Amino acid sequence: MHVMIIGAAGMIGRKLVEKLAAEPDALGYEISRLTLVDVIEPPVPVAYSAVSTALALDLSTEGSAEQLVATRPDVIFHLAAIVSGEAEADFDKGYRVNLDGTRALFEAIRREGQRERYVPRLVFASSIAVFGQPFPEKIGDEFFTTPLTSYGTQKAICELLLADYSRRGLFDGIGIRLPTICIRPGKPNKAASGFFSNILREPLAGQEAVLPVDENVRHWFASPRSAVGFFVHAARMDTGRIGPRRNLTMPGLSALVGEEIEALKRLAGPKAASLIRREPDPVIAAIVAGWPTNFDARRARELGFTAESSFDEIIRIHIEDELGGKA
Amino acid sequence: MHVMIIGAAGMIGRKLVEKLAAEPDALGYEISRLTLVDVIEPPVPVAYSAVSTALALDLSTEGSAEQLVATRPDVIFHLAAIVSGEAEADFDKGYRVNLDGTRALFEAIRREGQRERYVPRLVFASSIAVFGQPFPEKIGDEFFTTPLTSYGTQKAICELLLADYSRRGLFDGIGIRLPTICIRPGKPNKAASGFFSNILREPLAGQEAVLPVDENVRHWFASPRSAVGFFVHAARMDTGRIGPRRNLTMPGLSALVGEEIEALKRLAGPKAASLIRREPDPVIAAIVAGWPTNFDARRARELGFTAESSFDEIIRIHIEDELGGKA
Repeated sequence: MHVMIIGAAGMIGRKLVEKLAAEPDALGYEISRLTLVDVIEPPVPVAYSAVSTALALDLSTEGSAEQLVATRPDVIFHLAAIVSGEAEADFDKGYRVNLDGTRALFEAIRREGQRERYVPRLVFASSIAVFGQPFPEKIGDEFFTTPLTSYGTQKAICELLLADYSRRGLFDGIGIRLPTICIRPGKPNKAASGFFSNILREPLAGQEAVLPVDENVRHWFASPRSAVGFFVHAARMDTGRIGPRRNLTMPGLSALVGEEIEALKRLAGPKAASLIRREPDPVIAAIVAGWPTNFDARRARELGFTAESSFDEIIRIHIEDELGGKA
Repeated sequence: MHVMIIGAAGMIGRKLVEKLAAEPDALGYEISRLTLVDVIEPPVPVAYSAVSTALALDLSTEGSAEQLVATRPDVIFHLAAIVSGEAEADFDKGYRVNLDGTRALFEAIRREGQRERYVPRLVFASSIAVFGQPFPEKIGDEFFTTPLTSYGTQKAICELLLADYSRRGLFDGIGIRLPTICIRPGKPNKAASGFFSNILREPLAGQEAVLPVDENVRHWFASPRSAVGFFVHAARMDTGRIGPRRNLTMPGLSALVGEEIEALKRLAGPKAASLIRREPDPVIAAIVAGWPTNFDARRARELGFTAESSFDEIIRIHIEDELGGKA
């Protein structure tokens, strides 16, 4: 089986590559070929037995999608995107990469299929940014998508295209709406959502972290391990059970910032929690206030997608996967 | 005020032109210039005092949108589209006209606004085809859009673009989701929805009509006069009351085919109703079974959009507007 990961150099892309390298039968078939694509050349796992190719390529440039699809991968993971802040700041770039790039990929698959039958599984990374406030207490599977960012708009449009191309049998697509991933490994970044991870990751490493919002802020989370699990499950599941509604809100954990901190105290002690410095930031607080806080992700759960049910679990996963098992 | 109607040669486009010609202050301001656009040159109303231009132009061809927008209309009605059946049969044409043509218009407005401040009111004709079964008993304003046709997909995508461009202040857009228009004037056509009009219009003119479905089929209707009213109201309303959710399901009448026939009997007698010939057609019945039957269009009603509340009213409007007041 030939597997392609577009956006393989990103955080989840890299973890997905590691997973497939560590468990070559994770998708249910032996992977004979793995193609990794990103705008910068993605790292290839060392000591990986399958034939691997790493390509530096921008999906939104003329001919790129055709070049990728000409290799006829059986499974395509499409994770590449300009992030929310940049898509908002740069209108043209956001639409070019997040909408036109994705559409070019879909079209290249359709054209390839006109040449010779070709219906790959396509797993698309969507986002809860397709939703815009005001929200019900829990957002159900039939709630409408009224994004309040260009990023969310682009994701919602790609979801519609994915459903239409799948309905026509042009590929076998699944869009998965990711929760906020926590704990993100690596350095603190400037994303408005960064503090959700920072206030756990940094204290676990003995470092200070800044909390810019109240402890009663609620949000929707899943671990990086769960995110990889979503992609793997979406690639191997029986899509006959999905029907034409191909875009799924992934399960997650609805939790308060205060619950994050309580879990940190339980697992790493009060000293770790004392490294969290409160510095209220009304700008960040206002942004976060517009985000979804809770979902009833019933369809995805019924279709076998799973996520964490407590922040203790999320922190333990970080300790296992990033800190060699030691807090 | 300069008003442009794109899709002015279609049924609703022509009626909208007639309305503006008959009531020059219908939009709240005097119309000094009226530009009518369609792929065939649309008819210009006779004896119309404002400067009128008729253009034969396809929005999806290179440069067309820029040519239109360079004239800086204050209000743009965008009604042009490839219909559902054709968009399903011709994938490329449907996406080119219904998606790329509309996006080209939106982009041309954005570019014109970069040259010199320009924020026109843009009224976009969307459709209840943005919804796909299964449905709740009444589709509420927050129900999600999971279209089951490429036409519905294209309309849903344009709705998302319209909301994003409006949120960014690039234009002042409103998308209106039209019910099935009944009674459509003119000859019977081959649209699967045609019979809803045929079984009233033809008997009212002393002609036979074919009913291919059961009398207990329920559907969602508004008269051509209401449709024109939706467009006029959307062009002149205070958009400050709408907020970022710019796409509205228009009010309508949920009624059974049997209720259509009862109303026909009341207004034109049992002899008229006897001109309806039952010829069950399982293909049409199956298509119709996938269509929405009822909506709770609360937001649009609260925002001042109105439609008929009985089929008697719908038939009376046809008699007044198309038959010179005589059944």
